[in-house]
Amino acid sequence: MRIGKVINSIWATRKDDSLIGTKLMIVQLLDRPNDELGRIIVCADIIGAGIGEKVLVSEGSSARNMDSFNSSPIDSVIVGIIDEEKDKSDEVPKNA
Amino acid sequence: MRIGKVINSIWATRKDDSLIGTKLMIVQLLDRPNDELGRIIVCADIIGAGIGEKVLVSEGSSARNMDSFNSSPIDSVIVGIIDEEKDKSDEVPKNA
Amino acid sequence: MRIGKVINSIWATRKDDSLIGTKLMIVQLLDRPNDELGRIIVCADIIGAGIGEKVLVSEGSSARNMDSFNSSPIDSVIVGIIDEEKDKSDEVPKNA
Amino acid sequence: MRIGKVINSIWATRKDDSLIGTKLMIVQLLDRPNDELGRIIVCADIIGAGIGEKVLVSEGSSARNMDSFNSSPIDSVIVGIIDEEKDKSDEVPKNA
Amino acid sequence: MRIGKVINSIWATRKDDSLIGTKLMIVQLLDRPNDELGRIIVCADIIGAGIGEKVLVSEGSSARNMDSFNSSPIDSVIVGIIDEEKDKSDEVPKNA
Repeated sequence: MRIGKVINSIWATRKDDSLIGTKLMIVQLLDRPNDELGRIIVCADIIGAGIGEKVLVSEGSSARNMDSFNSSPIDSVIVGIIDEEKDKSDEVPKNA
Repeated sequence: MRIGKVINSIWATRKDDSLIGTKLMIVQLLDRPNDELGRIIVCADIIGAGIGEKVLVSEGSSARNMDSFNSSPIDSVIVGIIDEEKDKSDEVPKNA
Repeated sequence: MRIGKVINSIWATRKDDSLIGTKLMIVQLLDRPNDELGRIIVCADIIGAGIGEKVLVSEGSSARNMDSFNSSPIDSVIVGIIDEEKDKSDEVPKNA
Repeated sequence: MRIGKVINSIWATRKDDSLIGTKLMIVQLLDRPNDELGRIIVCADIIGAGIGEKVLVSEGSSARNMDSFNSSPIDSVIVGIIDEEKDKSDEVPKNA
Repeated sequence: MRIGKVINSIWATRKDDSLIGTKLMIVQLLDRPNDELGRIIVCADIIGAGIGEKVLVSEGSSARNMDSFNSSPIDSVIVGIIDEEKDKSDEVPKNA
């Protein structure tokens, strides 16, 4: 999976019937070293991610392994919303 | 999925039989940060996208999840035509 | 799919049995903006592409959707030979 | 597969139900020539990899070929922990 | 498929059970234009490739289409050893 940030929603009135009712979000991937910006992709979302949230994105055939997308041409989905990315920074705990 | 712009159609007289009758469009991906141009791919289209339109593209095995392509060697399809990409710009609403 | 140019054939005497009899061609992908050269891949070919021809390449599991490759470890195939890529150039039609 | 280094764990409270109980680790890929850093991905882990360990990562539909992930939208997993990467360096054997 | 060069073997004592007995090789991909070095991946090998040999690598679900890997989380395999890559160079035949 990749980490990304939701930057907007996107709409397509003319689309494949299997996508009707699917919420689509534009996600900026954050998968590059040295904080470079990654690619911009469009993900289906049934978790309810909001703009600005950091999310976990799954791609490829794995994306269709969520029940809602078994038979749709979806190749990327938001599978979770990241709580807190405890990474290598020397941050001071907020509850200290 | 990726956002792309249709830049032309493409023709192949000699091709795999399963592709006969499939409309193929050249699409410039718009998936890079900082408005860099992305890769140029060829997508099957049954939505009816026109040159210059911004489209939603699905790749990989997901592309074959549209009924028309179940048994063809297609690895990218246009799954929708983007209405309006409401992004992070400070645009003035057109209906204001 | 991607557009590529066949640059050579390639031979492997020691190989997986399922590849015996499969014609393999080296293809230079032409999928980068600004005419940069793309990656060099090896594609199976049953269409009969010749060196120097521009071809349409399908990758991943879609490549195995051609009957000949259902049960072989092929991940890229030539699915068509491009007639003429009517692109954004200001070319004069050859039949004018 | 790719070689990567585990740099942290990651948590998502709101997530697809199929991911409940799955340990997720942030992995820095080490797949670039000249020791450049690769992409940062999130992998499911049932091997028990610790932060700082070098691991073997499998991606795509292959990632779901581990029994635990057959029906989850996982697209990358840690499949092994690397003992020692006997590479092209002119290292002196530690047991010499 | 991609062309690569075997640069070493790799060992993982702690690994998914399905990988027990699988020979794993580190391969430097040679898929970049202008002789730039490509990515470094880890491939399963049942062909018997040696260090320094140029090989043909298949990735993704296609990699699992070799009988030995149907049910393992392998996403790249060596499918052949390249005899001689008759490319665009102006080489003098060795047997001339």
